[in-house]
Amino acid sequence: MTSSATRIGIIGSAGRMGQAIAAAVVQAGHMVAGGIDKDGDVTALAAQSEVLVDFSSPAALEGNLDAAAAAGVPVVIGTTGLEERHHFLIDHAAETIPVLQTGNTSLGVTLLAHLVQEAAARLGEDWDIEIVETHHRMKVDAPSGTALLLGEAAAKARGVDLAEASERGRDGMTGRRGTGTIGFAALRGGTVAGDHSVLFLGANERLTLSHLAEDRTIFAKGAVRACEWLVGQTPGRYTMPEVLGL
Amino acid sequence: MTSSATRIGIIGSAGRMGQAIAAAVVQAGHMVAGGIDKDGDVTALAAQSEVLVDFSSPAALEGNLDAAAAAGVPVVIGTTGLEERHHFLIDHAAETIPVLQTGNTSLGVTLLAHLVQEAAARLGEDWDIEIVETHHRMKVDAPSGTALLLGEAAAKARGVDLAEASERGRDGMTGRRGTGTIGFAALRGGTVAGDHSVLFLGANERLTLSHLAEDRTIFAKGAVRACEWLVGQTPGRYTMPEVLGL
Amino acid sequence: MTSSATRIGIIGSAGRMGQAIAAAVVQAGHMVAGGIDKDGDVTALAAQSEVLVDFSSPAALEGNLDAAAAAGVPVVIGTTGLEERHHFLIDHAAETIPVLQTGNTSLGVTLLAHLVQEAAARLGEDWDIEIVETHHRMKVDAPSGTALLLGEAAAKARGVDLAEASERGRDGMTGRRGTGTIGFAALRGGTVAGDHSVLFLGANERLTLSHLAEDRTIFAKGAVRACEWLVGQTPGRYTMPEVLGL
Amino acid sequence: MTSSATRIGIIGSAGRMGQAIAAAVVQAGHMVAGGIDKDGDVTALAAQSEVLVDFSSPAALEGNLDAAAAAGVPVVIGTTGLEERHHFLIDHAAETIPVLQTGNTSLGVTLLAHLVQEAAARLGEDWDIEIVETHHRMKVDAPSGTALLLGEAAAKARGVDLAEASERGRDGMTGRRGTGTIGFAALRGGTVAGDHSVLFLGANERLTLSHLAEDRTIFAKGAVRACEWLVGQTPGRYTMPEVLGL
Repeated sequence: MTSSATRIGIIGSAGRMGQAIAAAVVQAGHMVAGGIDKDGDVTALAAQSEVLVDFSSPAALEGNLDAAAAAGVPVVIGTTGLEERHHFLIDHAAETIPVLQTGNTSLGVTLLAHLVQEAAARLGEDWDIEIVETHHRMKVDAPSGTALLLGEAAAKARGVDLAEASERGRDGMTGRRGTGTIGFAALRGGTVAGDHSVLFLGANERLTLSHLAEDRTIFAKGAVRACEWLVGQTPGRYTMPEVLGL
Repeated sequence: MTSSATRIGIIGSAGRMGQAIAAAVVQAGHMVAGGIDKDGDVTALAAQSEVLVDFSSPAALEGNLDAAAAAGVPVVIGTTGLEERHHFLIDHAAETIPVLQTGNTSLGVTLLAHLVQEAAARLGEDWDIEIVETHHRMKVDAPSGTALLLGEAAAKARGVDLAEASERGRDGMTGRRGTGTIGFAALRGGTVAGDHSVLFLGANERLTLSHLAEDRTIFAKGAVRACEWLVGQTPGRYTMPEVLGL
Repeated sequence: MTSSATRIGIIGSAGRMGQAIAAAVVQAGHMVAGGIDKDGDVTALAAQSEVLVDFSSPAALEGNLDAAAAAGVPVVIGTTGLEERHHFLIDHAAETIPVLQTGNTSLGVTLLAHLVQEAAARLGEDWDIEIVETHHRMKVDAPSGTALLLGEAAAKARGVDLAEASERGRDGMTGRRGTGTIGFAALRGGTVAGDHSVLFLGANERLTLSHLAEDRTIFAKGAVRACEWLVGQTPGRYTMPEVLGL
Repeated sequence: MTSSATRIGIIGSAGRMGQAIAAAVVQAGHMVAGGIDKDGDVTALAAQSEVLVDFSSPAALEGNLDAAAAAGVPVVIGTTGLEERHHFLIDHAAETIPVLQTGNTSLGVTLLAHLVQEAAARLGEDWDIEIVETHHRMKVDAPSGTALLLGEAAAKARGVDLAEASERGRDGMTGRRGTGTIGFAALRGGTVAGDHSVLFLGANERLTLSHLAEDRTIFAKGAVRACEWLVGQTPGRYTMPEVLGL
């Protein structure tokens, strides 16, 4: 798919995602330029990389962005738990270098979010939207970040605020479903890597859009594809849909 | 299926289920002996019926059972919201006449509960159990009575108390899933008559047992089949699995 | 949704779809201008209708189109089994009046086809496409017309000819799946009104887009919505996606 | 789960299943006594093993059984493509040693087959049975051996011959579904390890029993569990349901 190998530097290389990315880099015919973790030398890593991929922590973000900007190297950011000030830092770095930040690097989920937005825009409020996800028994929060990303896609299409429109954790005497709301439900168990379904429930018909991850390699593979794409872009802030050309 | 037509009396005949049962009685080749609602004469109805089917209210139960027992006529009870004292009344009536009480008259759901019990008994605690159900947007409570019935089947097989073992309405920082628990999730929307799935999530494999009701006629049909079966039984308290021969 | 009632004439009014459409016309607040079947007077029906809906037979199509064109009345055509010469007749009539012809009037299926086209265009040949449908036990052909319509949407997006790219009726030693093909499978049983799923099977992830019809009323409702939309259009040939604004 | 480590000898150790079994043996706390492939010394392997597991080829079966019987060591046989004469050889060896032969070592599938048999026995012919499976794009035959195993479970429960009752590869003008038949459909694509669903389609309700393998480790794990169980049994021929206590 790519004409030449790219040197990719991994920030957070000892983590589960970092290791998976290293494997995916090699499998895609690229080179791991190096990897660092907490207390590693990001400036040195940036100097020897054509693109950086960061799955470390919000606390490390500022230093990572500074080093990337100084070296003029693009960055793919998959770190979760970002707050408003982190997004400000990203916007600032994006004036100098290409930056892609995303909550989910899977190409399938990215396309799913696009299709959900499309469907939510076409179907009126008489089609109720429900989002259900299943993850392994070790997951500690609900709904999943990806479920929320899908909910955002639906909310955006309908012109509503997701936080206000959400119905979460239904239990007991809930009363009838609110018109125009978006429901969330979470199943947990086993070793499920991640199932997500968005249901559009209308009068006597239903539309369901689903994604199933067989394992976590797809997230690493998507991060590498984002790296490939980001090299050669002009400075600016990018998102996964642009990688897919959506 | 039956050698002769049966005269079936309907208590709660004006309700949605009562009307559906009347249609199902006729379709099965039986006769509606009559129908009553609040303030109707249950003694007169019992006198002209071979079997009664009651989808009215808990408040009416005692009078209905008394009339049935006095006339020596069997009763199928589908009324929901019963409390401990109602079950005591049913046990008492069952000394004199055959009584079948159930939370779900669908044959498919009855079989599903049986299979869930079987699976839960065979699979150890390393298989997490999750129950998810979908119903129309007008439903006011969660989980559905049928979801709870399925949960009871699983809990019974595992020798645990359902109320203690349940994880309901997951939302926010839930922590990792409890070992041996039974999870419940509820989806609401559109005109869904009732979908139920019981998931057994193990290490790298999943078993899913599901039921889908295309419409509500199946509950009426199941009630009529229970009536057919109950006529000719000796006094006692019966359940839907016995109708299916499970 | 509509500002005023429309007089809708039904060709094929005694058929199952014709009867369902009559009910849907009334439910939507419109009027049944009249209904005819074989040997009925289509000229008289056209004269008293603002729009015609035709679910009769290919043999009757030419006479129906002539009468509609002569009266200047738009026509929605849901008749199946059309051949090339019928499409020629439709094109000809569309020079004079608005005509909408479709193999499926359901709004959900129409949107599904749009989403399938979108997904097939975005995902490369390393994502295998499979289409599986379930219908009631009385259905005599496979795959369903709707499955083929969905296959056409996928084939169009990939720039291939559906007939050449199809893998149908897999059984026995099939050899490995052909790259770029579109697979079809048909399940039959019970009273299923119509389930359709389009699977995109990639490396370690899957995207599934599904539609479920709870009953056949949705097809009648969609036909009525097409009638509403067609009244007031300029002469020309239209399709269901235009009704949805896709 | 087991009180002590078992020495397990692997016949066909270089194959994909053989390698997966070696990993599963270690993970379960047992020891790989050794492994052989074509031209390996099975007599020596048997001498140093407490139990043998054979995922090699039908051609090697006779020699393997002879060596096992001579050494008095139990054997688990997962080799596929066995013919009548192989089963005769197995029966013969089972007079001397414990032998377990199966087409699928997954515990989930074994339980599924049991539940399918149960459901098929309880539900009459007015519930149509359909079996649909999905496997990766490299699979060369259809339906899968596991789909046939599930079909056998259903056929046995209904007292019919599977070959005669099957409807496979539906395509074109099939005519209406035959009463009492069992339908099969096969989907192929991506990297799917194996999905199987058995649908019971009744009048207005549906029961679906499904299994999903997230990867192929479950088959290796099941083979190891079968080995654990087989050690200590008296000579005879056994099946997977007995391992589960079904």
